[in-house]
Amino acid sequence: MSLDAFLNPRSVAIVGASDNPDKIGGRPIHYMQKFGYTGTLYPVNPAREQVQGLKSYPDLASLPEAPEAAIIAVAGSAAIAAVEECARAGVKAAVIMASGFGETGPEGKAQEAAMRAMAHAAGMRLVGPNSQGLANFGNGAILSFSTMFIESPPQDGPVACISQSGAMSVVPYGMLRARGIGLRHTHATGNDCDVTVGELAAAVVQDPGVKLLLLYLETFNDPENLAHAAEIARDRGVPIIAVKSGRSEDGKRAAASHTGALATADRVVDAFFERHGIWRANGMLELVHAAELYLQGWKPKGRKLAVISNSGATCVLSADAADRAGLPLARLAPATETRLKEILPSFAASSNPIDITAALLSNSGLFGDVLPVAGNDPDVDLFLIGIPVSGRGYDYPRYAKDAGAFMRESGKAVVLAAPQAIVRDAFVAEGVPAFETEDEAVAALAQFTGHHAIMAAAKPAALAPKGPSGDVRTRFLDEHRSLSLLERHGLPAVERRLCHSLAEAQAFQVHVGGPIVLKACSAALPHKSEHGLVHLKLADADAIARAWRDIETHAAGLGVALDGILAARMASGARELIVGGRLDPMFGPVVTLGDGGILVEAMPDSTLLLPHFDAEDVRAALMKLRIAPLFRGVRGQPPLDVAGIARAARAVAGLLIEGGGRVTSVDVNPVLVSSDGAVAIDALVEGTEPEALC
Amino acid sequence: MSLDAFLNPRSVAIVGASDNPDKIGGRPIHYMQKFGYTGTLYPVNPAREQVQGLKSYPDLASLPEAPEAAIIAVAGSAAIAAVEECARAGVKAAVIMASGFGETGPEGKAQEAAMRAMAHAAGMRLVGPNSQGLANFGNGAILSFSTMFIESPPQDGPVACISQSGAMSVVPYGMLRARGIGLRHTHATGNDCDVTVGELAAAVVQDPGVKLLLLYLETFNDPENLAHAAEIARDRGVPIIAVKSGRSEDGKRAAASHTGALATADRVVDAFFERHGIWRANGMLELVHAAELYLQGWKPKGRKLAVISNSGATCVLSADAADRAGLPLARLAPATETRLKEILPSFAASSNPIDITAALLSNSGLFGDVLPVAGNDPDVDLFLIGIPVSGRGYDYPRYAKDAGAFMRESGKAVVLAAPQAIVRDAFVAEGVPAFETEDEAVAALAQFTGHHAIMAAAKPAALAPKGPSGDVRTRFLDEHRSLSLLERHGLPAVERRLCHSLAEAQAFQVHVGGPIVLKACSAALPHKSEHGLVHLKLADADAIARAWRDIETHAAGLGVALDGILAARMASGARELIVGGRLDPMFGPVVTLGDGGILVEAMPDSTLLLPHFDAEDVRAALMKLRIAPLFRGVRGQPPLDVAGIARAARAVAGLLIEGGGRVTSVDVNPVLVSSDGAVAIDALVEGTEPEALC
Repeated sequence: MSLDAFLNPRSVAIVGASDNPDKIGGRPIHYMQKFGYTGTLYPVNPAREQVQGLKSYPDLASLPEAPEAAIIAVAGSAAIAAVEECARAGVKAAVIMASGFGETGPEGKAQEAAMRAMAHAAGMRLVGPNSQGLANFGNGAILSFSTMFIESPPQDGPVACISQSGAMSVVPYGMLRARGIGLRHTHATGNDCDVTVGELAAAVVQDPGVKLLLLYLETFNDPENLAHAAEIARDRGVPIIAVKSGRSEDGKRAAASHTGALATADRVVDAFFERHGIWRANGMLELVHAAELYLQGWKPKGRKLAVISNSGATCVLSADAADRAGLPLARLAPATETRLKEILPSFAASSNPIDITAALLSNSGLFGDVLPVAGNDPDVDLFLIGIPVSGRGYDYPRYAKDAGAFMRESGKAVVLAAPQAIVRDAFVAEGVPAFETEDEAVAALAQFTGHHAIMAAAKPAALAPKGPSGDVRTRFLDEHRSLSLLERHGLPAVERRLCHSLAEAQAFQVHVGGPIVLKACSAALPHKSEHGLVHLKLADADAIARAWRDIETHAAGLGVALDGILAARMASGARELIVGGRLDPMFGPVVTLGDGGILVEAMPDSTLLLPHFDAEDVRAALMKLRIAPLFRGVRGQPPLDVAGIARAARAVAGLLIEGGGRVTSVDVNPVLVSSDGAVAIDALVEGTEPEALC
Repeated sequence: MSLDAFLNPRSVAIVGASDNPDKIGGRPIHYMQKFGYTGTLYPVNPAREQVQGLKSYPDLASLPEAPEAAIIAVAGSAAIAAVEECARAGVKAAVIMASGFGETGPEGKAQEAAMRAMAHAAGMRLVGPNSQGLANFGNGAILSFSTMFIESPPQDGPVACISQSGAMSVVPYGMLRARGIGLRHTHATGNDCDVTVGELAAAVVQDPGVKLLLLYLETFNDPENLAHAAEIARDRGVPIIAVKSGRSEDGKRAAASHTGALATADRVVDAFFERHGIWRANGMLELVHAAELYLQGWKPKGRKLAVISNSGATCVLSADAADRAGLPLARLAPATETRLKEILPSFAASSNPIDITAALLSNSGLFGDVLPVAGNDPDVDLFLIGIPVSGRGYDYPRYAKDAGAFMRESGKAVVLAAPQAIVRDAFVAEGVPAFETEDEAVAALAQFTGHHAIMAAAKPAALAPKGPSGDVRTRFLDEHRSLSLLERHGLPAVERRLCHSLAEAQAFQVHVGGPIVLKACSAALPHKSEHGLVHLKLADADAIARAWRDIETHAAGLGVALDGILAARMASGARELIVGGRLDPMFGPVVTLGDGGILVEAMPDSTLLLPHFDAEDVRAALMKLRIAPLFRGVRGQPPLDVAGIARAARAVAGLLIEGGGRVTSVDVNPVLVSSDGAVAIDALVEGTEPEALC
């Protein structure tokens, strides 16, 4: 269902309309009259004849038509009554500003559910409650009471911002307006009881005027719609940058006390955003600091940087900053350096960073001469111009003009780092994004190009099945059945036999021809090693007999009936990895890949994958680990088998998905990896009904 | 020798004086006349009678007195001649502005050495060449030609900045002046052919007007004086923040082409700065961004943060930002929370972060009420006030007044995060440091308090003996002698015997009563394992005999005469570490501690220590490693013996220091560490004359 009635309503009723433009019920009317709304406004206030110069109506039923949208600016139970009245009147879209609902506890959540049910029954949608409202500056539909639109007058522009928090909807607005950037949309959705940030994002990103979408999320409640919005955005080439706050433990605690936000495993949020090409910003600064770059519409082929400055120190600092930000410096072709040598004085550096030196003082055209030469170099994608000192004696308006002309003619990404405002202003006037320091300029380039890369690599994720969100009783499969299930999904498991007699185990050892392991096998014993139920390196019949009796004694002592005793070949390989997976209540199947061993909890080294993924995705994920060198080969050893690890990861994902919700967690620990394979040694499958898959 | 003649000269001669205030020889005269210099100026220019209204002299010999300081504003060989003339005339301090010396190559370096020799013979000191000059705004002695003092008029104040680069001396100046902060000193030393940044820093930091010292270094050339400056600064409570550029490989390359800077191992620079309580900033932004905090003179007891905001979202974002910056949130005492509950509305969060909610709109005194309550909490050291949206309806001047009053009365550190300039301006007017975002505010607090902590922990380092700076022939000691030397310095080594006959080795194994190792022992074979010269796990006479013969055969094949064959007990322990040390040409003895094993090169995990250090310093260094949990105990295993590792590290340091330059490198690989000791298994001592220590 379209959200057009929220974003472009033909008419808007204001329930609780106020004549005072500083009241919640007065401000939207004031804004819409002031900022060019051309639809019809219907103030509803039984106590007044007129509101802010408009005829006021006693109730919704008295209006001459069903308003397309309604603002509910009354509080508490009056808000609930107003929702009912709106539903009855045929309103399509209602924005509930009142707080005191879902954010206060279960009772408020129940009231939200009731309002949503009323609305849906009548074909109406709700934004809020606890919403500061929606603002579309493209058509003046300002269904919002934010004070920021007084403090920083709006200007229609290419940016859209959607936030659950009212404050964080207008913080980016204010920061961008202070930099002269216009916004088309500034929406605060509040508690998302019906329309979510994700659903609104999917609608907003279809507005052809929107070139950049900023999101602020405190609660992750609707990954499907957000994934859908991201897909539309990628099709349209619109980058999405998102802050999801509550990353830290203290932040989660604060968010819980602020909005009752569900804690979401933060690393899954990271993986989800990256998977969908959404850049995760760490805070409000990162959300907006590269906006000028995004709005240029640059399509850099790569992320190799050229630095050009009249100061050697700036060249050094820029190279350091690029290194910190992970931006490689371009290596100039010999032909480029030759050409630069012709332009620059003999003592200047014609390699990158390009130090044009104080020769700039006698030749103000040097930036303009050097830029096209470096621009023609095949290795250069990005340009940083550094001007640490300027003013008297420096023709910086000329430098700015030359840089702007190069930028427009070449379509290349160019930014300036200059501590002096006069210099930055001159470049900004030419359209060149400008920053105070090298670090800020380079960070913006790194984000912009990094975002470009994840957008290009993005693809949809399997968001179902989902894990249970509350406390649910789960059961385990025993080790043998767990391994067999994984084998069926393509992961080789260690050679083994589930034995019911000592003779069987002894025969297995003879068959194997080497040492074996005996382990108690029971779904009731998911964690065996603490109980003396595992015996290693059994190489003859006597040793096997002793171990068999020991396991039987210990199992009897624990009062556990065994499914049998599992005999397995003693396997060895180059490295133990752990491959695990679980159904997240929000994000569905999530697979974890990591280094194994006894120190894994104290020194974790793992990464996440969201299905579906292929061997290349697994390779990319492994390259994020500390042990990444092992997958390229270390000290003459052959590389560990990535294809084998990919089979393991895909088996775990496949089992979770096939389980359809009945398998909630899979743990393969260890997977023994060598240069030509990966074999599951131990595994544990858990779920509400895991045996249904066997 | 005092540098007073540079910083506070009674008279200044300007060699190459110009009537044009935009010329290098004119600008200092213009500045000194404009900015209140009260000493005597002597323009020297044989072509003019008058310069900028002052009598001009044909040469230094014609002056009525020996000027205390001289500016040499002439170029090339004229500059060299001027140095000679200054020396003859009895000048005490000369600033050479000309470039084209040491930064261009060996010939220029030789010219610098000659000028220095001339100067020193006459008791004169030199700043430069390639110096933009020195500027003391406390007395108007502006021996500088920087244009920035026109662009941003100076104001005497508590900050001093000393830089090798001219540009980077005035970039911090410009950024601070734009924020209304005054500077007493702004000095650019250029090539440091005589007076270095370190020596000038030691002089400047004794100026009672200086409360904060900023440094920019491209070449590390004088750690002794910098260490001395840092010591004086700590005594006076003056923080030093330094950028040492050329951190990255590209940065090093750019620095080499810019100034011929010697590449210094960057991690040693880190260790040196931390050791001396100097905060290493990553770039110009970090150099200045916390200046307002430093200038408050706060002495926080700890670094626990309280966050107070009227926005729940700001509370969440601030907690996240604090986590990223490594600032812990304070846990409020129950009494504090009880008191806050009395002040705040029932729906507000009285734990930290403290969300005072929109109740602020009806009670503008809430910040003022809450601050002293949190200020009395024993766990709170720092305060962040977050105001994301303000303006109409918000009495932010009142919030600012309340925050400023609390800050002054309590002496506690308070900062503001507010995206709107009007709000920041109100707080700045009350003296409260203000930032646009939570991330910036928290980063400033983290730097300020982190710096406070390293200043408190700082102590002098042993900077001698130094390693050779060029190519020097070195020799090795064989393994046995290397281990014996380390034993003498207190590091236990594996039980072993240097054998000259097979029978000796066999007898050693009987004595040991367990498996042994045989290794070829020769100073000519520092790296044995690749050559089949090591045999492990030898448990009987036959195995020993086979190994013995094999080693003899391989050694003969390599044409190496052995010192003997080393028999050693097969030792085992919980973890292999590597302890190494070397004499750095700049910093003297440097000890490295790190995890061992075959993956150490592919996945390094090591840290540096500068002697002298004690067991507590070693513990702190080990806590920076990835394997830090092993020193606290992991999964029920006892912690590795830190005291034993400290003995190993101190033995390496002791050997380097005792060597007095003759031992240049020590490598103990591995040191086998268990819960009750650390034992050297293999070691290699290298030096110009290492056997002199045996």
